[in-house]
Amino acid sequence: MSTLSLLKKLAVLAVRVGANVQKKQLVVVRCSTISAVLARLIVAECYKAKASNVIVQWRDEYVSKESLKHMDSQSLVEVPQYVIDQNKYYIDNNACFINIVSTIPGINDSVKSSRIKAFSEASMKHLSFLQNHTMSNKAQWTIVAYPNKVWAKKVFPNDSANVALKKLQEAILNASRVYENNDPIKDWEIHNNNLTKYNQTMNNYNFKELHFENSIGTSLVVGLVKDHIWCGGGEHSTKGVYFNPNIPTEETFTMPDKNRINGKVYSTKPLDYQGKLIEDFYLEFKDGKVINFDAKKERESLENLLNTDEGSRSLGEVALISYDSPINNTGILFYNTLFDENASCHLAIGRAYPMNIKRGVESSIEELKVRGYNYSNVHVDFMFGSRDMSIKGVTWDNEEIEIFRNGNFLF
Amino acid sequence: MSTLSLLKKLAVLAVRVGANVQKKQLVVVRCSTISAVLARLIVAECYKAKASNVIVQWRDEYVSKESLKHMDSQSLVEVPQYVIDQNKYYIDNNACFINIVSTIPGINDSVKSSRIKAFSEASMKHLSFLQNHTMSNKAQWTIVAYPNKVWAKKVFPNDSANVALKKLQEAILNASRVYENNDPIKDWEIHNNNLTKYNQTMNNYNFKELHFENSIGTSLVVGLVKDHIWCGGGEHSTKGVYFNPNIPTEETFTMPDKNRINGKVYSTKPLDYQGKLIEDFYLEFKDGKVINFDAKKERESLENLLNTDEGSRSLGEVALISYDSPINNTGILFYNTLFDENASCHLAIGRAYPMNIKRGVESSIEELKVRGYNYSNVHVDFMFGSRDMSIKGVTWDNEEIEIFRNGNFLF
Repeated sequence: MSTLSLLKKLAVLAVRVGANVQKKQLVVVRCSTISAVLARLIVAECYKAKASNVIVQWRDEYVSKESLKHMDSQSLVEVPQYVIDQNKYYIDNNACFINIVSTIPGINDSVKSSRIKAFSEASMKHLSFLQNHTMSNKAQWTIVAYPNKVWAKKVFPNDSANVALKKLQEAILNASRVYENNDPIKDWEIHNNNLTKYNQTMNNYNFKELHFENSIGTSLVVGLVKDHIWCGGGEHSTKGVYFNPNIPTEETFTMPDKNRINGKVYSTKPLDYQGKLIEDFYLEFKDGKVINFDAKKERESLENLLNTDEGSRSLGEVALISYDSPINNTGILFYNTLFDENASCHLAIGRAYPMNIKRGVESSIEELKVRGYNYSNVHVDFMFGSRDMSIKGVTWDNEEIEIFRNGNFLF
Repeated sequence: MSTLSLLKKLAVLAVRVGANVQKKQLVVVRCSTISAVLARLIVAECYKAKASNVIVQWRDEYVSKESLKHMDSQSLVEVPQYVIDQNKYYIDNNACFINIVSTIPGINDSVKSSRIKAFSEASMKHLSFLQNHTMSNKAQWTIVAYPNKVWAKKVFPNDSANVALKKLQEAILNASRVYENNDPIKDWEIHNNNLTKYNQTMNNYNFKELHFENSIGTSLVVGLVKDHIWCGGGEHSTKGVYFNPNIPTEETFTMPDKNRINGKVYSTKPLDYQGKLIEDFYLEFKDGKVINFDAKKERESLENLLNTDEGSRSLGEVALISYDSPINNTGILFYNTLFDENASCHLAIGRAYPMNIKRGVESSIEELKVRGYNYSNVHVDFMFGSRDMSIKGVTWDNEEIEIFRNGNFLF
C-alpha cells in the first residue's frame, strides 16, 4: 500500500471518527504549511462527508519563530479584532475543528522566553473563549499528527532524514491504528469500547483520592472531585455528536480536586511547550498549589507556564495509562504530547474538562470552581508514568484499592 | 552558489527593491503553501529591513480547488465580515504587500466556470477596495515568483520533474536579474533608469493613438487618453516611497481611452485566468467595447471575464515590449502572466492605473472616467505581441511616427 493510500485512511479517520463531520457542517482545519499533503486529503474527505465549507487556517512555525524574535513590542501583544471575530465566526457557525500537529521540537529554543510569554498571554486573553468552547465540547474537535523531517531526526537521530521520516510516519500511523490491511473505523469502535470499560471500572470505585509512588521520587496524593467522571476514547458534544478528540488516545482520565493535591511528582518524558523542550523537572504541591519546582532544561519556560495565571499552579487532569501500552512498547520517545501522553500516566497543568464531573458541561465556571474544578487559560499535559509506578485508590470509606503495580493497571 | 543563496538574493530584491519595506512598516506576504521556502526568506529579510510586523496570508491552490468544486452555494458567495476587516486592517496600518506567485497552470480545469464566476464576483464585490488601494499606489506592493514542479512540467514537458524544476527556477531567477555573481539591487537601478528613458521618449511624443498590425490578423487602433503618462519600472507610492510592482518587469505602458479602441486583436500566448488556460482567442472592438470574441480553448472563461462588469468589455492598459526582449529571447513560454506579459506587447482587460494620467492618483474615479479612464473590478493582462508586429503612433497633429518594426522598438 502506498504512503498516499495510508494517509488517505488517516484522513478518513480524522474526518469520520475524529471530528465526525456532520452534513452541512462548517469545518475548520488548523495546520502548518508542512502538513499540506495531509490537509488536502482531509479537506477532500470533509467534502465527501458533505461539509458545507472547509476553511484551512494555515500557520508556519518558521515564520512564527521569526516574528516572535523580531516583531516590535506592540505587535507582539496585539490581537487584531478581525482575528477575534474570525474565531467568533467559527463558533457562531457551529464549526468543528480538525487540528494537524507536526511538531518541530525545540524550534523556539533561540527565542527569549519573555517574548513567548508576552505573546501567548495576549493570545490567551483574547482568544480563551474558543478554548472554553472546545474544552466544554460545544463542538466536535480532533487532533491528528503528520511527520516532518526535523521531528523525525529528533526521534530517530541515528537514521538519515529520509529513513527517519519513514519510520516516524509508520509510528504515527500505527499509533493511530492505521495499517495496510485494517479498517481503522472498525478498530476504533472496538478500541473506544475497551476504553469505556476502564472508565466504568474506575467510575464504580468512586475514589476520594489516588496515591502515586515510584523509585525516582514521585510521591503524590491527588484528590478527586466528588462526582468526578472517568472519560477516555470517544466523547459526545453538547449537541450529541460522538467524536474522538485525540488520534491516538489510550488514556482514561478524570478531574483532580484543585485544593487536595499534595506531594512531589517527577517528569519522566520531555515536555514540548511553546517550541521549547522542558526536561527533567519536578513539581511539589501543597493543598493543590505548586509551592516548589525545578527543571534541568528550560526552567524559565516551566516557570512562565506555572505563572500564567492563578489556575496554572494547580492541575486540571489526571490520566492513567499502563506502562505496557501499545505506544510506549514501541520504545519511541516522540517529543510530542499527543503521543507521549498516550504512552504514560500524565497530569495536566491548568484547566480541567467540565465533562469530567457530573452536570459539568451545563454548569458555569463559577459553579464548577466551588466543586474543586480548576480554571486557567492553559491546559498542558506532562508525563510522569514509569516502569515501577504503583497507584492506590482510596475510597470515601478509606478503603485502599491497588490500581497499578509495576507501572501497569491491575484490571 | 547554492539554490538557497540565490533565493536569498531574490528575497532581498523583493524586500528592498520590490516592496521597498520601510522601517516600522507592517508587511503582508501573500503566498501559497508551495512557496513556503521563499516566504520564510522574505519574512527574515523584512525584519532585517526593520519591519514592525510581517503577516503571512497563506493559501493553497489544491484546497481552493476542492472548495470551489464542493462547498455549498451559500458559502461559495459569502465573504465573511472578518475577511473584509482583515484587509481594512492592512490598509489602516499602512501595510505594504509582497505577493509570491507560483502558478499551477490549469489547476481549475475541472471546476465549473459558473462556480468560479460566482465566487470571484462575490470576492470582487466585497474586496475591491483593496485593489483600489494598491492600484492607486496608496501603498507599495510587489509580485515575485517561485517555481513548483507542476508549473515546471508544463513549461518543460520533455524533462523530468526535477530537471524541469531546476530549469524553471533558473529562468525565474535570470528573468528577475538574480545571478550568481551580480548585485541585483544595482542591476535593477540601471534597469529602472533604462525603462525611464523609454517612458520619457514616449511621453515626449504625446500620441493621440497607436496603430497595431501583424500578419496573424491583428489590426487595432488604441486611442490614448489626453495627458496620459507612460510608466514602467519603478513607481512612487502616494507616500513617496519608490518601489517596483513587478519582478521581473520589461514593459513601458500607458492608459487607453476607453471610448477610442477599434479593430481586432489576436492573442499570441495562452492566458492563465483563475486557474483556466484560455488559448488562441481574439477580441473585436468598436468604440472602446468588445463587440465580438472567440477562443479555441476555455471560451466560457473568456466570456465570464468579459462579462464581469461594464468595464471588463474595455481596456485599462497598453504595454510595449520588444519581441527581442530578454525574457522572450529565452524562448520559454511561462504560462504565467508575470513573465509572459514581460515578453510581449500586451493589453489589459479592465481597470486602468490612475498613475497613467496626469493628476490621476489624486482624482476620484468619477473624475477619471470623464477623461477616458476605464473602471472595472478586473485587470487582466493578455499577450498579443509578435515577431512581425508593426506599431505606428499618431500625434494630435496627425503626424505618423513608426514605433515598432518587425516586433521591435525602433528607438
